[in-house]
Amino acid sequence: MEKNRLEAFSDGVIAIIITIMVLELHVPQGTDLSALKELCPVFLSYVLSFIYVGIYWNNHHHMFQAVERVSGGILWANLHLLFWLSLFPFATGWVGENHLAATPVAVYGFVLLMAGTAYKILQQTIIARQGRDSVLARAVGGDWKGILSPLCYLAAIPLAFVNVSISISLYVFVALLWLVPDRRIERVLEKEN
Amino acid sequence: MEKNRLEAFSDGVIAIIITIMVLELHVPQGTDLSALKELCPVFLSYVLSFIYVGIYWNNHHHMFQAVERVSGGILWANLHLLFWLSLFPFATGWVGENHLAATPVAVYGFVLLMAGTAYKILQQTIIARQGRDSVLARAVGGDWKGILSPLCYLAAIPLAFVNVSISISLYVFVALLWLVPDRRIERVLEKEN
Amino acid sequence: MEKNRLEAFSDGVIAIIITIMVLELHVPQGTDLSALKELCPVFLSYVLSFIYVGIYWNNHHHMFQAVERVSGGILWANLHLLFWLSLFPFATGWVGENHLAATPVAVYGFVLLMAGTAYKILQQTIIARQGRDSVLARAVGGDWKGILSPLCYLAAIPLAFVNVSISISLYVFVALLWLVPDRRIERVLEKEN
Amino acid sequence: MEKNRLEAFSDGVIAIIITIMVLELHVPQGTDLSALKELCPVFLSYVLSFIYVGIYWNNHHHMFQAVERVSGGILWANLHLLFWLSLFPFATGWVGENHLAATPVAVYGFVLLMAGTAYKILQQTIIARQGRDSVLARAVGGDWKGILSPLCYLAAIPLAFVNVSISISLYVFVALLWLVPDRRIERVLEKEN
Repeated sequence: MEKNRLEAFSDGVIAIIITIMVLELHVPQGTDLSALKELCPVFLSYVLSFIYVGIYWNNHHHMFQAVERVSGGILWANLHLLFWLSLFPFATGWVGENHLAATPVAVYGFVLLMAGTAYKILQQTIIARQGRDSVLARAVGGDWKGILSPLCYLAAIPLAFVNVSISISLYVFVALLWLVPDRRIERVLEKEN
Repeated sequence: MEKNRLEAFSDGVIAIIITIMVLELHVPQGTDLSALKELCPVFLSYVLSFIYVGIYWNNHHHMFQAVERVSGGILWANLHLLFWLSLFPFATGWVGENHLAATPVAVYGFVLLMAGTAYKILQQTIIARQGRDSVLARAVGGDWKGILSPLCYLAAIPLAFVNVSISISLYVFVALLWLVPDRRIERVLEKEN
Repeated sequence: MEKNRLEAFSDGVIAIIITIMVLELHVPQGTDLSALKELCPVFLSYVLSFIYVGIYWNNHHHMFQAVERVSGGILWANLHLLFWLSLFPFATGWVGENHLAATPVAVYGFVLLMAGTAYKILQQTIIARQGRDSVLARAVGGDWKGILSPLCYLAAIPLAFVNVSISISLYVFVALLWLVPDRRIERVLEKEN
Repeated sequence: MEKNRLEAFSDGVIAIIITIMVLELHVPQGTDLSALKELCPVFLSYVLSFIYVGIYWNNHHHMFQAVERVSGGILWANLHLLFWLSLFPFATGWVGENHLAATPVAVYGFVLLMAGTAYKILQQTIIARQGRDSVLARAVGGDWKGILSPLCYLAAIPLAFVNVSISISLYVFVALLWLVPDRRIERVLEKEN
């Protein structure tokens, strides 16, 4: 099976997820700037989620450059990732509309954790099919970002009930960590040639 | 006519259907876990429908690998399938919001039955054009899954008025049946080469 | 400029339009079949609009097979068509929710008329660029469907205020007229080879 | 990295943005023409935003014809542009539903300004990678439209609090300026061959 349609379908779903989140920015009733001010938490959680979904799209894009053909297992691992990403609009809206209450912030972290896990499963499924010697296996190598991120989420979930600011700082920290695009795959591919 | 645009359009529509369903997961009013608990039936029906739409996308993907060129008949048979799939968000939302009442569960089964029938019609339209000797015709062969599934839906529809759990178990059973990706087409294609 | 991106963008917009219409099928409050019965006019107007958008997608698909390269003028003529198609969900919802009142039915006809006109402009823009001798120019030839359809819409708009059934019959009639896919372009292309 | 997926993803996001805006055209309660009349400001702001998003899509399409390969920087500059475009439905809805009140009109101008700036950043990121001698660098040349547009937005934002009509006229003026597709890139490409 070729990877084009899997890429096209994933692009479609991610494009819709990233755009549907903006629907949570309901048109305010008032017409002055104070009406905008009330939207601030919704807007900021939208910005954070937009960056997260952008990171997933970027990394997905990079990872599939190292993939030639897809199997049934990869298709389902990919759908599993899309499932957790599809919960971003819900989690984002819940955080934003409740001015950062503890439970929604913890649930947001849970969705981040599950999406990260799903991404990892997808990566492993691809490596399992390509063999330990493949470009992707060597590129991923000592994946310190991939180990640090779930630890941050795992800490952030209970910490939300202590102080939401800590959890949110952790989410922002992980986002910054990944904002730098993942050059590992490109580097290994360049060495090959 | 080439199949690329039909695939791209179908990918787009299926990507939107799968993502629009999540809009039924309305952001809850409360901020504690009990608010999430109330969302449980909506969430579970979302998960089931996500898997069903995923199965359709996977099988559609597989089937069109055995297709070279499309005719006007195939275009319309494909649109007919997309029509029934487009009713998934509605049926899913109705089931979820009514905590699994009998009529919505039966209607959900009806939509599943019609989507299954539309898929079968699409398959037959393709085979009719390609001839009985084609890869797809041989791959489909004794299509026991394709015969068992509509029987399950047909049983589940009236049974919803007896006990919803039976119907839902039948829907989950059919989903599990298809979750295993359809290797028949790949197998026949491999034998050829 | 190549046509791929124009096709992909149009596919995306049309896929969203066709799927967004289903959002007008609001999940009903009740859980019995009478709740579904009330949705009947919304459902039927959804079916009609789905068929119309499907026809536009099919014909768009056919027409662009006869196109090699696109100009700025074609890009804008295409966006103009997408604009009128984007009003289908609004017009469909208005007709459906008002149990086929006169003004919404007339407005629906107006949107159909404008979309049809926009399609014609797009066709002429392509022919103007390709020359009178092109495949498309010869294929379109004596375009009796393209002449009859706007006449039907023009009649249906005022007739909605006399009797909505006449207008709706006219809309259904035009849809049936076009449901047969447009083989002219294929035929001319086949003769060439 | 190849540009195809970036184009496909951008097409998806822009297609959704342009179509989601129409959701602000809520189906009216009444069934007479006066109900439509009340929708006029929402409709007109939809038309303006549709044209703006259309212009961005057209120019994006043109610009990426002069791009061969994309870097991580270009991916993020592109996502940044999509972020500001994704706020169009919100800004459009706010302007339309408040019958052109001052603050929404000013905020609309701010979103236009930021989208324009993001487009400029994307252009510079591409040129920085391709070198000052590239097709795009020479094509952009003395970019008077790109200089005049932000000046118009910057003037329109405070002027909204004096008289909304001036700001809106400025927005319409800039749209007309760009409606003429950007032939510079095509011209330079043609000279090359």
